[in-house]
Amino acid sequence: MNTFGEYLRLTTFGESHGKGIGGVLDGLPAGLNIDESFIATEMARRQGGRNHYSTQRKEPDKVEILSGVFEGKSTGTPLGFFIHNTSSKSSDYTALKDIFRPGHADFTYFYKYSIRDHRGGGRSSARESSARVAAGAIAKLLLKEFQITLRSGILSIGDVTGEDIDFNFATKSEIYALDKKVEEQQKEAITQARKAHNSIGGVAIVSALNVPIGLGEPLYYKLDSAIGSLMLGLNGVKAVEIGSGVECSKMRGSQHNDAIYKGGFETNHSGGILGGISNGDEILIKIHFKPTPSIFIPQNSLNIAKEECSCIIKGRHDPCIAIRGSVVCESMLALILADMLLLNSASKLENLKKIYAKNS
Amino acid sequence: MNTFGEYLRLTTFGESHGKGIGGVLDGLPAGLNIDESFIATEMARRQGGRNHYSTQRKEPDKVEILSGVFEGKSTGTPLGFFIHNTSSKSSDYTALKDIFRPGHADFTYFYKYSIRDHRGGGRSSARESSARVAAGAIAKLLLKEFQITLRSGILSIGDVTGEDIDFNFATKSEIYALDKKVEEQQKEAITQARKAHNSIGGVAIVSALNVPIGLGEPLYYKLDSAIGSLMLGLNGVKAVEIGSGVECSKMRGSQHNDAIYKGGFETNHSGGILGGISNGDEILIKIHFKPTPSIFIPQNSLNIAKEECSCIIKGRHDPCIAIRGSVVCESMLALILADMLLLNSASKLENLKKIYAKNS
Amino acid sequence: MNTFGEYLRLTTFGESHGKGIGGVLDGLPAGLNIDESFIATEMARRQGGRNHYSTQRKEPDKVEILSGVFEGKSTGTPLGFFIHNTSSKSSDYTALKDIFRPGHADFTYFYKYSIRDHRGGGRSSARESSARVAAGAIAKLLLKEFQITLRSGILSIGDVTGEDIDFNFATKSEIYALDKKVEEQQKEAITQARKAHNSIGGVAIVSALNVPIGLGEPLYYKLDSAIGSLMLGLNGVKAVEIGSGVECSKMRGSQHNDAIYKGGFETNHSGGILGGISNGDEILIKIHFKPTPSIFIPQNSLNIAKEECSCIIKGRHDPCIAIRGSVVCESMLALILADMLLLNSASKLENLKKIYAKNS
Amino acid sequence: MNTFGEYLRLTTFGESHGKGIGGVLDGLPAGLNIDESFIATEMARRQGGRNHYSTQRKEPDKVEILSGVFEGKSTGTPLGFFIHNTSSKSSDYTALKDIFRPGHADFTYFYKYSIRDHRGGGRSSARESSARVAAGAIAKLLLKEFQITLRSGILSIGDVTGEDIDFNFATKSEIYALDKKVEEQQKEAITQARKAHNSIGGVAIVSALNVPIGLGEPLYYKLDSAIGSLMLGLNGVKAVEIGSGVECSKMRGSQHNDAIYKGGFETNHSGGILGGISNGDEILIKIHFKPTPSIFIPQNSLNIAKEECSCIIKGRHDPCIAIRGSVVCESMLALILADMLLLNSASKLENLKKIYAKNS
Repeated sequence: MNTFGEYLRLTTFGESHGKGIGGVLDGLPAGLNIDESFIATEMARRQGGRNHYSTQRKEPDKVEILSGVFEGKSTGTPLGFFIHNTSSKSSDYTALKDIFRPGHADFTYFYKYSIRDHRGGGRSSARESSARVAAGAIAKLLLKEFQITLRSGILSIGDVTGEDIDFNFATKSEIYALDKKVEEQQKEAITQARKAHNSIGGVAIVSALNVPIGLGEPLYYKLDSAIGSLMLGLNGVKAVEIGSGVECSKMRGSQHNDAIYKGGFETNHSGGILGGISNGDEILIKIHFKPTPSIFIPQNSLNIAKEECSCIIKGRHDPCIAIRGSVVCESMLALILADMLLLNSASKLENLKKIYAKNS
Repeated sequence: MNTFGEYLRLTTFGESHGKGIGGVLDGLPAGLNIDESFIATEMARRQGGRNHYSTQRKEPDKVEILSGVFEGKSTGTPLGFFIHNTSSKSSDYTALKDIFRPGHADFTYFYKYSIRDHRGGGRSSARESSARVAAGAIAKLLLKEFQITLRSGILSIGDVTGEDIDFNFATKSEIYALDKKVEEQQKEAITQARKAHNSIGGVAIVSALNVPIGLGEPLYYKLDSAIGSLMLGLNGVKAVEIGSGVECSKMRGSQHNDAIYKGGFETNHSGGILGGISNGDEILIKIHFKPTPSIFIPQNSLNIAKEECSCIIKGRHDPCIAIRGSVVCESMLALILADMLLLNSASKLENLKKIYAKNS
Repeated sequence: MNTFGEYLRLTTFGESHGKGIGGVLDGLPAGLNIDESFIATEMARRQGGRNHYSTQRKEPDKVEILSGVFEGKSTGTPLGFFIHNTSSKSSDYTALKDIFRPGHADFTYFYKYSIRDHRGGGRSSARESSARVAAGAIAKLLLKEFQITLRSGILSIGDVTGEDIDFNFATKSEIYALDKKVEEQQKEAITQARKAHNSIGGVAIVSALNVPIGLGEPLYYKLDSAIGSLMLGLNGVKAVEIGSGVECSKMRGSQHNDAIYKGGFETNHSGGILGGISNGDEILIKIHFKPTPSIFIPQNSLNIAKEECSCIIKGRHDPCIAIRGSVVCESMLALILADMLLLNSASKLENLKKIYAKNS
Repeated sequence: MNTFGEYLRLTTFGESHGKGIGGVLDGLPAGLNIDESFIATEMARRQGGRNHYSTQRKEPDKVEILSGVFEGKSTGTPLGFFIHNTSSKSSDYTALKDIFRPGHADFTYFYKYSIRDHRGGGRSSARESSARVAAGAIAKLLLKEFQITLRSGILSIGDVTGEDIDFNFATKSEIYALDKKVEEQQKEAITQARKAHNSIGGVAIVSALNVPIGLGEPLYYKLDSAIGSLMLGLNGVKAVEIGSGVECSKMRGSQHNDAIYKGGFETNHSGGILGGISNGDEILIKIHFKPTPSIFIPQNSLNIAKEECSCIIKGRHDPCIAIRGSVVCESMLALILADMLLLNSASKLENLKKIYAKNS
């Protein structure tokens, strides 16, 4: 169950402190330019600035392409890739090898499998998201061919919430803040949490523009289903909103319905999705991240002998996972849209006629 | 893409105003008692009371089992079922056959497929959820064998939000209200919306108790991924929260982490899921429904000739889809948990040894 | 696991002596004319002539379409259908309800599921193939739009093998014989087996013409993989050959390789498939059917108490399943080719550019 | 579509002359000892003896495990692995980069994808089977825990066919011959083909013993379906037989049906499979391989400009692919049986009760 997608399928493997993280992207159409420097740029975005707001674990995160590309172009065969772990310090985890860290997957992996790689969370580490960003970068290269663009940023850190949604500013901000007016306050909130050996939650926003009408496969692989699946399945995400989101429940129909005019929709409460299918409007998603579970304050827990104990965590951890998480969410939306674009190609007979015109 | 699940797979078909709604539940273990009266009870719950708070379309919604059951027990072969449409009034929709109803899937289905069954939304109608409830009822029969129980109810209608979460009260309430103290206010909010020819949003809560530790298949079929996929894929849902939900982003790690003791977790911010796997605690989900898009006030829209027009809707519609939606969400969680229970059976060698002990 | 296909997916359900046999065909492109009279014709072909060479169980096998079609055209939503059982005589099977019929699936279903519907083999009955033929007929309607045609017939009955492969003659022959010269001898072989209360094996050939180059998704959903999966998975099939088939092993490379010229391939040892992908040449498959396991001679067997007993079969059975099986194989090849046609539509960027030209 | 399996899923990637061949085995139960020396032994079997009967391309084929194993045991997370290409001589292929080699996939890959990695067939090379053998070795480690054993060997080379099926002898034979009496003749047939710059076909047999009753998921993932899919999808295979195989069509029912006694089946025409489910008897498969398409005699062909030309092949090629192919087929049967073993674990309620006894 380490595969996502129906036509464009990403399978990932690897652990935080093993040899590395890898992936296989299958179903990519042939003839796409695979721009490795763009992939590197995306990987760097996920790593965040070398600043106080993200983990001190700094690895080059070089994506090595193992297959599926010939003379710079995709060949239609599976694109395998691997990202070597170069900076893992397993020794940080030795003291914790028999203890379940609160808020982590240690407890559930142990009882599910009766064995676990305790080093840095093993497979359950957020480090796996590097494979999602690598694959998402390739998906973006495909989407670019159709002028579909994606952006993201941070709306809230703790209870400091911005008002403006300025994706351009976010690209320059060390914490990917969307609102310049609150950026300093948000940084301060992170700094205070960090200094208290604690962590803090945050909210990310992801947007996609110029998405063609028709993407999404009802009824069980709708566009919003896929968003729900990937976003709520990401480490630390506890809530996902599309368009009007949680506010929808407070409205009446006459307020919420987006009136339709020749020029488009009057409002975008739908978040660009109607009946699980893109309607051509901006796709807007809000993702709520819990605070990093790894904190440096002693916590009550159990060990594998089911005895109560104090859990004291060391290592290098982001004080706020939402920041780098926002880039992962953007990558995952790219993967979803690319998959939907491919799936939709055979949705009607007239599409097939265009493709097989000369063969028939 | 009308199939959900990896081991226990539900495929549905059918339209609102066609012959009916059907489904195939494949992967159900053999030997389960298929209690048809329980299925009927669940279908009745989805229909809601015959009151002013739900649609006036009243059909018996009789689930006819077509296969997979022999002498009252499941045989391991696919269980096909069908629910005849008996009360559809297609004539209500004739006036709208070339108009896209705002907030509905008319627009996107038309552009995706270049053809659409305009009668009552066709495939995109909420009527399809009857198949989810039928299949969910069967999933519940399986879960009952392992003492897993599910409950649901309504937290908010518009801006009237309850405090108590009393699932027992919800079973008696006409609007499945969880908090007796606000039930009347919530009814009043619906009545006012209805009288204004309008509709209103709402929030449902779903809970599962006694879920074994270990359900969920990381990393792309985690328990929370599946919840996100099915819940955000349901008509009218714009946000889904698990455990602490949107509140998580405002917390610090020391607050959010659920400390672990011999007797269990101190708090349940995780909503019963760690690393995508059930941790044995209560599974708690909050689902936000938009107001019913079908309202009886004229709205601006387009027709299929891309001309602006006024859209005037007739027919029978729930003023608040959250109410009956809560039952559908509970059914979908049952489907997810049943699938996860089956998938988990081969997660470790020791499980297989128990099963194949005599064969080896 | 009752679903076949990756894009165009057929899910079937139903038993021989239950209410009927049904199916859901999902992924069918919108806009296809669903010619119900053509479906009826195909169903009649599967039933065979009302003669001595096939079962005396004669049902109209009317395919009722339950969904997915609006005003005669496919809508892109799942096409559900059902074929009622009208002629089942369960009483024929009462005597055998605790006995495993040799050559049948009784034994394995019982031990796998600990329960079985003994009436006519239940799910394992060849009657399920009616759903394959119904879905295959729809697949053929799609293939016709691209001038792809399929044909089939009988090569051998027992050890009487024809030389000519005359698909036109087969359509007129009561036993779908391909070679007029041996038709009478083949009929005689069947008659003798039938008179001896016995049954006889046979070999079918299926052909597809005008298949575009490029169908098949290497490496695990190659065109020949899919053929192997469906054909060897059909009741009673013990061997499948493609192109040169079993003869290939006796050749040298210089004989077997099909030389390529401007006008096409010199020979067709490949059977129209190279590297798992159609090469534009005729697709040629040979399918070997065992004799019908239901014979009217007493056989040694066990009952469910594991006691030895004599098994005496009654009922109505084809003396030679290859005859009607040939039609099923043709239908299955249609399903495979239709699925491959849809999957191939997104195989290269230039195809996608054709489809999304106006949207981008 | 580079994934095989439903529970235990193998995804492969890589090309003949790229960086290497890799795979991800997902769904492997936790707690299995991963014996790397056994994997190495299996890889060596696939390479064949360093003799005149197989390719002169000799690589160590070291399987590097990248993930999913911790302290020697499987963890339940995906097992990624990679086999570096160390001996590829791409220069051998430069002359052929615009020419379609007869009998190869060059033609179809080019027209399907409009681009191809011409070096050694790229993805379509038999070298990919190294990933199947690596994964098959791991599947065998799982099957061993249940005393299931697999064997294979060569029945025929060209028209030299053995009578004895001596799997022990095959392990010692340079050409994996099953019958000592014809081994020399079979070697001679290969040698003559090789000396004539030609190649020759062959037939392999694969057997599995001690398979529990119940493996196989009807109706579309039967045990024989899966065998058909993987075996007919292997490079160079043109026919697959199970049990009685092509002989079945010549028999009458009374001959073909395997009578059942307390001690088991009297005969094994079924090849150990009834209704798509294992019946506990020996599983017996016969696989027919065409002669290696790479021969050193000039052949007529086309180039990518659609001009006729002479194709002259160089490089290192097996004169008879059946020999090493037999090991691949054995590995694939191991993969199938392992997948089926896992899938079957949830087939009936009583199995689930055994697993969740303590949790409920």
